[in-house]
Amino acid sequence: MDYRRFVDEQVADVRKTVGDAIAINALSGGVDSSVCTALGHKALGKRLKTYFIDNALMREGEPQRVVGTFKKLGIPVELIDSRKEFLGALKGVTDPEKKRQAITDTFYKTVFSRLVRESGARFLIHGTILTDIEETVAGIKRQHNILAQVGIDPEKEYGYGVVEPLKTLRKDGVRKVAKVLGLPDEICQRMPFPGPALSARIVGAVTEEKLKTVRAATAIVEEELAGMKVFQYMAVLLNDYATGIRSNKREFGQIIVVRCVQSVDARVASVVRVPWAKLEKISKRITDIPGVNRCLYDLTPKPPATIEYV
Amino acid sequence: MDYRRFVDEQVADVRKTVGDAIAINALSGGVDSSVCTALGHKALGKRLKTYFIDNALMREGEPQRVVGTFKKLGIPVELIDSRKEFLGALKGVTDPEKKRQAITDTFYKTVFSRLVRESGARFLIHGTILTDIEETVAGIKRQHNILAQVGIDPEKEYGYGVVEPLKTLRKDGVRKVAKVLGLPDEICQRMPFPGPALSARIVGAVTEEKLKTVRAATAIVEEELAGMKVFQYMAVLLNDYATGIRSNKREFGQIIVVRCVQSVDARVASVVRVPWAKLEKISKRITDIPGVNRCLYDLTPKPPATIEYV
Repeated sequence: MDYRRFVDEQVADVRKTVGDAIAINALSGGVDSSVCTALGHKALGKRLKTYFIDNALMREGEPQRVVGTFKKLGIPVELIDSRKEFLGALKGVTDPEKKRQAITDTFYKTVFSRLVRESGARFLIHGTILTDIEETVAGIKRQHNILAQVGIDPEKEYGYGVVEPLKTLRKDGVRKVAKVLGLPDEICQRMPFPGPALSARIVGAVTEEKLKTVRAATAIVEEELAGMKVFQYMAVLLNDYATGIRSNKREFGQIIVVRCVQSVDARVASVVRVPWAKLEKISKRITDIPGVNRCLYDLTPKPPATIEYV
Repeated sequence: MDYRRFVDEQVADVRKTVGDAIAINALSGGVDSSVCTALGHKALGKRLKTYFIDNALMREGEPQRVVGTFKKLGIPVELIDSRKEFLGALKGVTDPEKKRQAITDTFYKTVFSRLVRESGARFLIHGTILTDIEETVAGIKRQHNILAQVGIDPEKEYGYGVVEPLKTLRKDGVRKVAKVLGLPDEICQRMPFPGPALSARIVGAVTEEKLKTVRAATAIVEEELAGMKVFQYMAVLLNDYATGIRSNKREFGQIIVVRCVQSVDARVASVVRVPWAKLEKISKRITDIPGVNRCLYDLTPKPPATIEYV
């Protein structure tokens, strides 16, 4: 496939669809939304308003880092603090699909409707990729960026049209487009990170306390496994507790799962044989997080598991 | 330490304590209760009544196998079917300490009181070892075989005296005594298995369904890791569920943890670096159990985890 031509076609298509109107998009820092941002900026210049929504579910320092990266590329991104809205919507929600739904609703209905109104935008550019559509249609999990595919007319429902320039690509294709667009390696090669962010890494209800724990574990796993040439690695906080022992006393503690998988396009994934010394070091560091006394390694390929837990 | 002399002393002590009375004991098939059975039989002959209590929490085929092993040694063991009593007492109990308590109460108050009455026994010979006492006293976990140490007078409370011939030994010492008593290798070298049996391998409430699942996983782990010269290996069923994918459809599935540790006496334990090919095979087989779609490997030494989960 000729990705240079793909970019030209999509730029032309975005220009044609949006016309003289204003479009907005949300940047998460992942390769999909980064490509949408660069592509949309190429097509529309200042008529694209890009927002980074801080949904309280991001990794350590992520909002500031992503905004900074795009600033260097000459693409302005506005940071929107929506932490309270998302935490409020997620409160007490334990079912994975309802969690995703709460995030979708908060994202589109609460935060984005407001940004659309304030910006006067008529279009949303969205980084849906082919795998998202397939998994949603197959009923495996609802991706938060799928609307038309599940029978929602965003024009009617939310008051704006949705443009999805990447919907024919898989992850590997998106990375090639990122390269063509001149995005830096930290974005082209960036690991996938789910739309529901760290809430997809918490089994059960999301709380600020649990976000803090999984955020700390995520930082450890990402630091220790940086340099592994693999598709994705992550830390997941389970809802279960197990008995442990610390300073000779019983401690009923939390459990972190480390997952590290190889994949081309996220459709199937195999488990990486991470060196034992590395796993032992990760386990040691993770069980130093207050409240955590178990660290497990996920041995399950996709299928029968998915890459994420929620 | 001279284990031959230890046996002679304990045999003499049991004879002196029990006198002309009848003693009973419960055999689980573990090395502690097996040594108690052999030692008590040596001391008391037919005045020791040994029971195998089927508490519904045993591994596949275990009750029949253990009774058969002792029959070959010339030691009669009566199999008592108490499955309904234990499952009833455990129903809906999720707290680890309350689970242990429910088993202790059912064991002593319901099942054993009845056996004491029926047999006319005045004494119970019990396989408490030093580690059990230490962990109970330290408040780490309540072992189901500790009474005096936590201030219960069994004579008053249950109507019989308790004899604990192994209470000065740790696991490695008990194995040496087993050898001196001429017990077969399958018993001397038998892996530790907890008093609460498979209920210690289920996080959350125990149900027949979950017992079936963890029993199947246990059989796989024990079959695949047989021959590893390690202290203990096991399968644990978590209470959490995670999203998975099977036959292209979403499946919200159960999670099994595989644990394999090296230890001398269970006070501290290190994680075994099981060969990856073996772990992958175990994961494959475990995720073929209906309802299970994740298999994890526990990377945590003791401390900060304990060997068991409950």
